[in-house]
Amino acid sequence: MTHSLKKAVVLSSGGLDSTTAMAIARSEGFEIYSLSFDYGQRHAFELTAAKKIAERLQVARHLVIAIDLHTIGGSALTSDLEVPKSRTPETMTSEIPITYVPARNTIFLSYALAWAEVLESSDIFIGVNAIDYSGYPDCRPEFISAFEHMANLATKTGVEGKTRVHIRTPLLHLNKAQIILEGTRLGVDYSMTHSCYDPSPEGLACGQCDSCILRHKGFMEAGIPDPTPYQGTAVRNQDV
Amino acid sequence: MTHSLKKAVVLSSGGLDSTTAMAIARSEGFEIYSLSFDYGQRHAFELTAAKKIAERLQVARHLVIAIDLHTIGGSALTSDLEVPKSRTPETMTSEIPITYVPARNTIFLSYALAWAEVLESSDIFIGVNAIDYSGYPDCRPEFISAFEHMANLATKTGVEGKTRVHIRTPLLHLNKAQIILEGTRLGVDYSMTHSCYDPSPEGLACGQCDSCILRHKGFMEAGIPDPTPYQGTAVRNQDV
Repeated sequence: MTHSLKKAVVLSSGGLDSTTAMAIARSEGFEIYSLSFDYGQRHAFELTAAKKIAERLQVARHLVIAIDLHTIGGSALTSDLEVPKSRTPETMTSEIPITYVPARNTIFLSYALAWAEVLESSDIFIGVNAIDYSGYPDCRPEFISAFEHMANLATKTGVEGKTRVHIRTPLLHLNKAQIILEGTRLGVDYSMTHSCYDPSPEGLACGQCDSCILRHKGFMEAGIPDPTPYQGTAVRNQDV
Repeated sequence: MTHSLKKAVVLSSGGLDSTTAMAIARSEGFEIYSLSFDYGQRHAFELTAAKKIAERLQVARHLVIAIDLHTIGGSALTSDLEVPKSRTPETMTSEIPITYVPARNTIFLSYALAWAEVLESSDIFIGVNAIDYSGYPDCRPEFISAFEHMANLATKTGVEGKTRVHIRTPLLHLNKAQIILEGTRLGVDYSMTHSCYDPSPEGLACGQCDSCILRHKGFMEAGIPDPTPYQGTAVRNQDV
């Protein structure tokens, strides 16, 4: 085991959480294989961020997989699922893939599992967080445990007992401020990460969406200057 | 429950097994939502077959999702995984997505789970078979059980306790002849199904690949004439 680094597949959205998870994986001595998904033009900034982060963290390979979630997710729009209120049509359209695509983490982790098997890696990192996203079923510890159990029955290596797949969730029980403190300690440049649901055409964060507000609050609580490039003075209004 | 049929998502490859599973789902009174995957030009005949079968079995909707398995599967070609011997390069190329893409059923079932949640369906049918594919980890009963357990933790409905997802595997313990007998009893027209790994440009079965041989043997054992359109007299040589 001394001749080469252990490999880890790290799910990367280009956001704050997954970038911190990647920095943690690297600090544990893993060679990083970062994996992002292209499921619509809304995510162009996220994918650009994920690519830059992959370069900065010197990953062994960065893979972007195109997935067709619109076909399924589009059905939700025409069904009787409840649509969130008090949002502009633009915001709704841009948020529905995030909020409403069911089984998203299951699909993401399934691709990660496939790649991990090809790479003969036994570690998959995902930046899920049970505190800030407690309402999401596929961020709960019991979901992650069940996926890990399934994963070890799904693959050839699992059958042969050669490697055991671990789904690693280093952020699971941290709040946003704790995540930021840990990432900062590891040298993460958060100005590279992208969290905003509704960025400007230039990619600047709006400072007003749920994701921006949560992120900014995390920096304030951590006592670390927020390096996010915002549009105008959008966030200053939140600095109470 | 009397005002509408229960919905089932049925994974459909256009082959003999998944078509039989679909016929069984229909015979149990489900409204069928068939789901196929487009992951390369080799599957054009399979997708054509899946579409024809969806029409013939009058499914409520047939969805084809494009998935990017080549990006991951391609890596297997350049790794040190063992490549099957005594095959022509053409055959190898066309077979690698079938044989070597890891976690394939996990990915397929994850998409089916997403669609089932959107449809508010609690039944997903998959034509896996533990007898003819006993070497495949993701065809084993323990994998299916583990996926079902995970699925019930992954989704919103699972959290709310509203519906419970069932992964239905009606073929799990049947051999090929038994599958053919059951499908024939239910009126399946097997001449529409496509199993061959290496069809002619016109879509005729080669009669020589593993899949063709297994399929033809099933018909012989079932005592039912094999309706498969073969190239020339390819199979007659096997009729010992």
